[in-house]
Amino acid sequence: MAEKDVSDADDPIVKKLQGRLKRLRKKLARAEAKRDLPAVSPLAPKAGFPSLPVIQGVRFAAGSAEVKYKDRDDVALIEIAAGSSVAGSFTTSKTRSSAVLDCEAKLAALLKEDKISQPLGLVVNSGNANAFTGKAGDGSVKAVCEAAAQVLGTSSGNIFTSSTGVIGEPLPHDRITGKLAELGTELAPDRAEASARAIMTTDTFAKGSCVELELDGKMVKIAGFAKGSGMIAPDMATMLVYIFTDAAINSAVLQKIVSAATVTTFNSITVDSDTSTSDTLLVFATGAAGNAEIRSTASKAAKEFAGKLHGVMLDLAHQVVRDGEGATKFIEIAITGAQSDASAHKVGLAIANSPLVKTAFAGEDPNWGRVVMAVGKSGEQADRDSLSIRFGDILVAEEGWVAQSYREQDGVDYMKGPELKLGVDLGVGDGAATVWTCDFTHGYIQINADYRS
Amino acid sequence: MAEKDVSDADDPIVKKLQGRLKRLRKKLARAEAKRDLPAVSPLAPKAGFPSLPVIQGVRFAAGSAEVKYKDRDDVALIEIAAGSSVAGSFTTSKTRSSAVLDCEAKLAALLKEDKISQPLGLVVNSGNANAFTGKAGDGSVKAVCEAAAQVLGTSSGNIFTSSTGVIGEPLPHDRITGKLAELGTELAPDRAEASARAIMTTDTFAKGSCVELELDGKMVKIAGFAKGSGMIAPDMATMLVYIFTDAAINSAVLQKIVSAATVTTFNSITVDSDTSTSDTLLVFATGAAGNAEIRSTASKAAKEFAGKLHGVMLDLAHQVVRDGEGATKFIEIAITGAQSDASAHKVGLAIANSPLVKTAFAGEDPNWGRVVMAVGKSGEQADRDSLSIRFGDILVAEEGWVAQSYREQDGVDYMKGPELKLGVDLGVGDGAATVWTCDFTHGYIQINADYRS
Repeated sequence: MAEKDVSDADDPIVKKLQGRLKRLRKKLARAEAKRDLPAVSPLAPKAGFPSLPVIQGVRFAAGSAEVKYKDRDDVALIEIAAGSSVAGSFTTSKTRSSAVLDCEAKLAALLKEDKISQPLGLVVNSGNANAFTGKAGDGSVKAVCEAAAQVLGTSSGNIFTSSTGVIGEPLPHDRITGKLAELGTELAPDRAEASARAIMTTDTFAKGSCVELELDGKMVKIAGFAKGSGMIAPDMATMLVYIFTDAAINSAVLQKIVSAATVTTFNSITVDSDTSTSDTLLVFATGAAGNAEIRSTASKAAKEFAGKLHGVMLDLAHQVVRDGEGATKFIEIAITGAQSDASAHKVGLAIANSPLVKTAFAGEDPNWGRVVMAVGKSGEQADRDSLSIRFGDILVAEEGWVAQSYREQDGVDYMKGPELKLGVDLGVGDGAATVWTCDFTHGYIQINADYRS
Repeated sequence: MAEKDVSDADDPIVKKLQGRLKRLRKKLARAEAKRDLPAVSPLAPKAGFPSLPVIQGVRFAAGSAEVKYKDRDDVALIEIAAGSSVAGSFTTSKTRSSAVLDCEAKLAALLKEDKISQPLGLVVNSGNANAFTGKAGDGSVKAVCEAAAQVLGTSSGNIFTSSTGVIGEPLPHDRITGKLAELGTELAPDRAEASARAIMTTDTFAKGSCVELELDGKMVKIAGFAKGSGMIAPDMATMLVYIFTDAAINSAVLQKIVSAATVTTFNSITVDSDTSTSDTLLVFATGAAGNAEIRSTASKAAKEFAGKLHGVMLDLAHQVVRDGEGATKFIEIAITGAQSDASAHKVGLAIANSPLVKTAFAGEDPNWGRVVMAVGKSGEQADRDSLSIRFGDILVAEEGWVAQSYREQDGVDYMKGPELKLGVDLGVGDGAATVWTCDFTHGYIQINADYRS
């Protein structure tokens, strides 16, 4: 009998092999498409990850639970000493994940206590977001919290969790719970950076920030880290932020400061207008610095602390934008002369989220017409004839028309820089706001379209 | 004396020439980048531009005024006979153009009259949008209206204008007014297609649609055309729509029908979430068909007419999406089970405008997780555990998780088609809405970033 022709399309084995070959070719094409992307964002801070100070009362451990990745740390366990305070802010998505819902409930309960008597804990994993995993997702959060509570000798209600990575796949939480005891033995105050790296997904660099201030003659430290490189890409880029301080501060006051600072930092950045189901910010304060406990937002100490915390939050927020998927330009958009600060914020985000504005920046095109369009679509009060626009210090348009002093070549030259400022004065009031974004490039399409998980 | 080395970077002439060479190289690179884009959208109707019927009482002329383009028609003059009705709908942009503001004021005045005794006129130019041109822009509109009124023997208050093309540059309106007398002598009932072509900018195909219906034993015709290929690109793609019918219908009733139909047609499409400063829809009814005048929206004739007009508007709206910049997929997004129709509409647009959803479609990736994310960010009422998602007839997710019957390969195969349907049931009410969009590709970035006017 003659051997069967391998090109025989009716043979099921041949068909199967051909299918496999086709999928492999596609995978290769995608890998090649991604090859040209820079390994680290060109906008990453030149100094690299900062040397975070030890925050007394906080200990970190990171390890590999092989949730999805095989050759890197993917779980962080963090212990915050008894007697600490906590505050937080979460995604407003209507489809937020089990972990976020759990964090919100626990934070609300803890904010009612004047002093949290038991230790707090935080478990973060990368590789799987445990999002849109139905009721099973709630079970996974519960299992991780119970295991972490046992390791840290605290109650399950004191454990916060975050998950980031693929969505719609059940979280193999037993891999995490099976690793926690070992991590518990490795907890150390100087291992924050390893935790920052364990929670990265498509981030091209780890993001950290720290600052010191003096309160009542005591040195107070604030240190934190973040991950995120698109507002969300479900297989990828949820924004998670954890900040630690040894300041003595009441939870309720800390929450007020954190909520206010979130508006002008993490809620003033956008990469692609999309919102994660899992975005989480948690701030822990151990009180170990020994300052007089801050119990009112009106106090001088509260204001000084709030200013420094805001700085750390803004630095981390900017780093997330600097790691925006495919970004080649870091863009600050300052709106002035709006009807109110809230109105200015909306106009700023309308500009920052406009694909036409973002592609103009990518093309180094001083296309102020697209800025006018975006102001118009924001729906906020604006007047064509009192609007003025600046690229950096260059006045581009005023009184409803291109400025007489504007030379196109100045705009073209300005747009070549990697750090750009766009100023828009609406001329209708005193409201002001600043937002930050990045440009919209072939790299973004490459990462999000030329790719299948 | 030795000749100066031409590579001497200090020589100002050499420097200048080098700069010129650099700019030319960049221009060439951009031309090459655009070369690969299809001349006509792959989603264009296969049948081409329809043969529009003559609408008695309407005459068209088109010609070249060289507003910007040198070798094609760029101005259309349209005359609508005395005794006609008119209705319209315009961009809600806060920075809308002089022509739009002028059309709005004139339409409001005309809607107060039961019968418009003098002829109506319409002048549309491409090449220059007369947008953000300050007070001078208002003057240009006035000049064009006065010249057209003289040619058509009517009052300036009866002339509507639209302009589309580059923004921020003064409209050389004398080129248009200088052409109108000639166009007046060329007016003919069968030249609608030439007008449709004269108003194109970055459109890759001319867009027309027509239908007939019988009212009171009389044949009534509706015919219209549109331009637009991105919601806006300031140098490019404002959406302009003009529809003509010989139906006898009162202006107020026509306006109600047009306003209602706009919601589910032109306001239910999105290419890139951006809004033009110049979007204009005008509908003219001459009454020449001889049907009994429609004077109430409740009448049977009104309902039949409204249904047919809606069909023409939806057809034109879909053609605009099919010409979306860089589009390779035409996507229908049907939302059901929402709290209200308005809520469903918002959820639909949140999905249709999400860069992550649109890039997933471009990548033929059945990434339902991104759909969940977009539902969540809409801010509308939704419940993770009652949400269900379909690609075509394939049930992908239900009860907060991937459907048991779903096979990934089915989703992958489905996404390969050029015409896709996404169904999302929110499971919280009876509200429904359908919106249409296209995918988000390298072509969009090419057109909008790799390009300077």
